[in-house]
Amino acid sequence: MEKFELHILGCGSALPTTRHFPTSQVLNIREKLFMIDCGEGSQIQLRRSRLKFSRLNHIFISHLHGDHCFGLMGIISTFGLLGRTAELTIHAPEGAKRLFTPLLDFFCAHLPYTVSFHEFKPGEKPEVIYTDRSLTVTTIPLKHRLPCCGFLFAENQRQNHIIREMIDFYRIPTYELNKIKNGAGYTTADGQDIPNNRLTRPSEPARRYAYCSDTVCIDTIVDQIKEVNLLFHEATFIHKDLPRAKETFHTTAAQAATIAKAANVKQLVIGHFSARYEDETILLHEARAIFPNTLLAKESLCIPV
Amino acid sequence: MEKFELHILGCGSALPTTRHFPTSQVLNIREKLFMIDCGEGSQIQLRRSRLKFSRLNHIFISHLHGDHCFGLMGIISTFGLLGRTAELTIHAPEGAKRLFTPLLDFFCAHLPYTVSFHEFKPGEKPEVIYTDRSLTVTTIPLKHRLPCCGFLFAENQRQNHIIREMIDFYRIPTYELNKIKNGAGYTTADGQDIPNNRLTRPSEPARRYAYCSDTVCIDTIVDQIKEVNLLFHEATFIHKDLPRAKETFHTTAAQAATIAKAANVKQLVIGHFSARYEDETILLHEARAIFPNTLLAKESLCIPV
Repeated sequence: MEKFELHILGCGSALPTTRHFPTSQVLNIREKLFMIDCGEGSQIQLRRSRLKFSRLNHIFISHLHGDHCFGLMGIISTFGLLGRTAELTIHAPEGAKRLFTPLLDFFCAHLPYTVSFHEFKPGEKPEVIYTDRSLTVTTIPLKHRLPCCGFLFAENQRQNHIIREMIDFYRIPTYELNKIKNGAGYTTADGQDIPNNRLTRPSEPARRYAYCSDTVCIDTIVDQIKEVNLLFHEATFIHKDLPRAKETFHTTAAQAATIAKAANVKQLVIGHFSARYEDETILLHEARAIFPNTLLAKESLCIPV
Repeated sequence: MEKFELHILGCGSALPTTRHFPTSQVLNIREKLFMIDCGEGSQIQLRRSRLKFSRLNHIFISHLHGDHCFGLMGIISTFGLLGRTAELTIHAPEGAKRLFTPLLDFFCAHLPYTVSFHEFKPGEKPEVIYTDRSLTVTTIPLKHRLPCCGFLFAENQRQNHIIREMIDFYRIPTYELNKIKNGAGYTTADGQDIPNNRLTRPSEPARRYAYCSDTVCIDTIVDQIKEVNLLFHEATFIHKDLPRAKETFHTTAAQAATIAKAANVKQLVIGHFSARYEDETILLHEARAIFPNTLLAKESLCIPV
């Protein structure tokens, strides 16, 4: 299986604690890095993770609250000092470009690379905001105090694997192989029809990671994240603090687990912890009582998707 | 002696390392806190220092490079979340207000307290930019790639201490005491002149802390920082890398020590270390060979001034 890993750089919420950095994560998908949110100190945590800065070309910002984007300027500056030349794309809600451009013009006037903003409007429907040969990123509509969305990172289904021995046996020419990988059969020179399933093995199932933060608990996301391999869902509060969660448009650990259960995801990781809990195992226990396969996010944790 | 302590929150330079945060320091002067520079992560380091956030009312920014001010937005937001009501003053070079105001308007729209900018023009002459009953802060003209200055924090000379026994002996009325603290003598009812030095003991000498970063090595600062109790001077490079220091308008450890020696300061602490040195004791040894009473800055270090 090719690499598809989640690295937690920070999983606290807005107030700094001695235990947590604000939100930032990196997905390593086949050695391409995708950053999700970029709270203050993300570049420091990225350095500590030993991930290669140069492999990061895309940063996705869920919403324009400071604890999710105050690390942007630092990381952009540092990439410049390191002599980066590849374009860096910031996928962010509308408004980000207008806000950050004056700062970039002043603090990063002579960058050796281009920073481009790809803005989207976190609306009521999922929207594809990124695709490449192996990956598609779609927004997940969330509900917070200002426009906000999560992100679904889905591997594209790969072509079937050729069974080399069968290709040789039927002396199938190379130029036919792509059709066969895409599902076609083959007719030999003497008119024999060979079905595709004798020539190929199915590829590994495509994997999916869903990131849902920040949001009040909404079950409208369940369909979109159905059976994902890994769900990160914010769990800012314990359920006893539900009134506070509602008031601030956040989710409780029990609610996050209920979403995970309804969506029948394979694994749940909770984060975006309020500074009020000295010991977050209280959140973990609460979630596990509803959805046993739950992990607690923590800085430097790496989870295979 | 009343408290006058320097806390190092970060002493790296622009590139993040696993060892250092970018520049930030806090002076604790009689339980009033003064922050000097505010690199990314300063609020996290301030939290770790266990210093009381509410005691910090003034932040001094030496120059508008990101590694000295990208932590401002985070700390301002956090103070708001904590319900601060006291005004926070940012003393910074011209331009800071124009740069940060749009961000404050967007990210910190409903702060429960006022952020005010007190801008100054880092010029060729020292300028008093802050005074209170016990302290005066003066800029120290430096030479960097853009307008930049250091800061001299000087305790105001305190009044002499009254010798209570002598006051009682001569039955000096209370309303005379302030004059005596300020140096006056006293004439008794029967015409006897008592000189001031029989009525008072001298107060402790006023202490001074000088912060000089970032700058190419310039000896024009020597007069202003003469015999300070503690000098922080940047020492980004070792002397072998002098060409690089000149090119980037930074100082070597040997140069910082030479300045300390010429100014006859009591103690030197060096910082703003380049990311290129895995082990900074090389910088310390270089400085100590010239000025023995040198310390290496490090995160969480606290030095009495």
